Amino acid sequence: MSKKFNVAVLGATGAVGREMIHLLQERNFPVSALTPLASARSAGKEIEFRGEKIKIKEATTSAFSGFDIVLGAVGSGLSRELAPAIKASGAIYIDNSSAFRMHDDVPLVVPEINPDDAKKHNGIIANPNCSTIITAVAVNPINKLSPIKSMTVSTYQAVSGAGAAGPIELQEQVKALIEGNPVTANVFQYQIAENLIPHIGSFLDNDYTDEEMKMQNEGRKIMHLPDLKVNCTCVRVPVVRSHSISATVITENPVSTADVAAVIADAPGCKLYDDKANKKYPMPLITSYQDIVYVGRIRKDLTNDNGIALWCCGDQVRKGAATNAIQIAELFL
Amino acid sequence: MSKKFNVAVLGATGAVGREMIHLLQERNFPVSALTPLASARSAGKEIEFRGEKIKIKEATTSAFSGFDIVLGAVGSGLSRELAPAIKASGAIYIDNSSAFRMHDDVPLVVPEINPDDAKKHNGIIANPNCSTIITAVAVNPINKLSPIKSMTVSTYQAVSGAGAAGPIELQEQVKALIEGNPVTANVFQYQIAENLIPHIGSFLDNDYTDEEMKMQNEGRKIMHLPDLKVNCTCVRVPVVRSHSISATVITENPVSTADVAAVIADAPGCKLYDDKANKKYPMPLITSYQDIVYVGRIRKDLTNDNGIALWCCGDQVRKGAATNAIQIAELFL
Repeated sequence: MSKKFNVAVLGATGAVGREMIHLLQERNFPVSALTPLASARSAGKEIEFRGEKIKIKEATTSAFSGFDIVLGAVGSGLSRELAPAIKASGAIYIDNSSAFRMHDDVPLVVPEINPDDAKKHNGIIANPNCSTIITAVAVNPINKLSPIKSMTVSTYQAVSGAGAAGPIELQEQVKALIEGNPVTANVFQYQIAENLIPHIGSFLDNDYTDEEMKMQNEGRKIMHLPDLKVNCTCVRVPVVRSHSISATVITENPVSTADVAAVIADAPGCKLYDDKANKKYPMPLITSYQDIVYVGRIRKDLTNDNGIALWCCGDQVRKGAATNAIQIAELFL
Repeated sequence: MSKKFNVAVLGATGAVGREMIHLLQERNFPVSALTPLASARSAGKEIEFRGEKIKIKEATTSAFSGFDIVLGAVGSGLSRELAPAIKASGAIYIDNSSAFRMHDDVPLVVPEINPDDAKKHNGIIANPNCSTIITAVAVNPINKLSPIKSMTVSTYQAVSGAGAAGPIELQEQVKALIEGNPVTANVFQYQIAENLIPHIGSFLDNDYTDEEMKMQNEGRKIMHLPDLKVNCTCVRVPVVRSHSISATVITENPVSTADVAAVIADAPGCKLYDDKANKKYPMPLITSYQDIVYVGRIRKDLTNDNGIALWCCGDQVRKGAATNAIQIAELFL
């Protein structure tokens, strides 16, 4: 009989935590016991796993005992606070927050790209930023043709990226607009219904947001491209669940669109979806509730002979977060 | 007494035509008589102008007699069909369609950028593509610092760009989704509510759409940059009326963000709106029903020392179409 794992999901009531529990079941992960952990407010409530009701426990430093794997879906502050206790317990902590992503001794892993990095862990393995995962899955195959030197990226990020409250706020605003009622914004800086907000995360001194810099910083670590340069603009759009990315990739040597299409078609986690005659291109409408990244609109950059423009789209809650974390756990099966 | 003009609006019942009539009144254009022209279906109906009801006449080749200015807001097919009759009548035809934009003897004018080109007309003056106008108004001031060599652009285009039926379809789809009814798409290729469609216009052999190529082709003519190269991705978003553009501009020599901000602040038609501490950046929510282009998120391109990234936003129906056409007419006052 193959090994089964005692698994905890930290942040079990959030959008990503709930999806992790759903995926452990859907992907038939060998769970011997599941422990959902959340804030004191949720402790005592029940979640369902494999048809069984399981009580949520409070996530305190003393909660981590006996787990083989802890899947983290909490913010970076709480993650930093609890990580020492998780490490001390001997569990592998697969953390979806940004707390440890850039730490030298923490692997940052997209299993389709750098699975071997996961083996070098020191107790913590970080799950990358959602837009970065989706973009990296789409563009990394191009590195086989010629190393990527730089990217210019504009994102179209769904409201689910702000957690479970994001889609609720969008729905409430949409209803308020239809009914002619005042719109209130709590989760986002401004109304997001019928609007776009070019501000995700916190502004840094270089006038980029920390969210925008993740594409460069995390992209370098995941794709093993220490000199990768990325010019990224992150924009929130009134879409529920899938992130979309318009990317122009500059490679060391020119590559053809046919070769790019071929390596993307072959790459794990990617679906080449690029058939202009039949109006096939990635859209949130068709990519949500899936684990693969759709890639299309592949064409030559008209400004640079070494450039390729493309458009990709993937479910932010799944491949951009929960699925990627479970796939990291699956590397240890 | 200053001259007054006998004005016809061709396509008076469409989104742009209606806005043109509204703006002739709002901007106090010296109209001696206004004639709304539309299809046989609309002929006989009335529109209001300066508190007066005016009957719509059918737009046929024999309808053009006695006009000083014809403002065109019909598709390029009908525009091509009627243009010879308009020219023969001696009127100046200011055409919002793409029919004549790239003709050598037709000026393509954004009054803030190349007003003198309008004087060299041969009966027809073309109004540029909406996203191109908004982007050109935002980036053209940078040419004062150093000529623009190339741009990488991703658009976020409102549904109004598809005419009056676009916002109606979005609203119907939003309601259908809330009520759990099936969604139908007639105006757009797919559902646009809660979705993004990376396909505006028709696909060309180079895998770009004709809409995407307008940014390069029309941008060259408007800004007098014959060698400008543009890599453009056009995306329809579920926003009602303002287009937004994420642009990276590469100049011949490096320019500073402070200098870029200064020339944009000084430029006609632009509003510098770039104050990260106070969360001020252009958004459709704040730029609609105005004639100016908001520009913000100005920062250095991290991939190219000669690059500047920025984000701009403007009302597609107004500055992207109707206002620009009226401003061209105002050059003849």
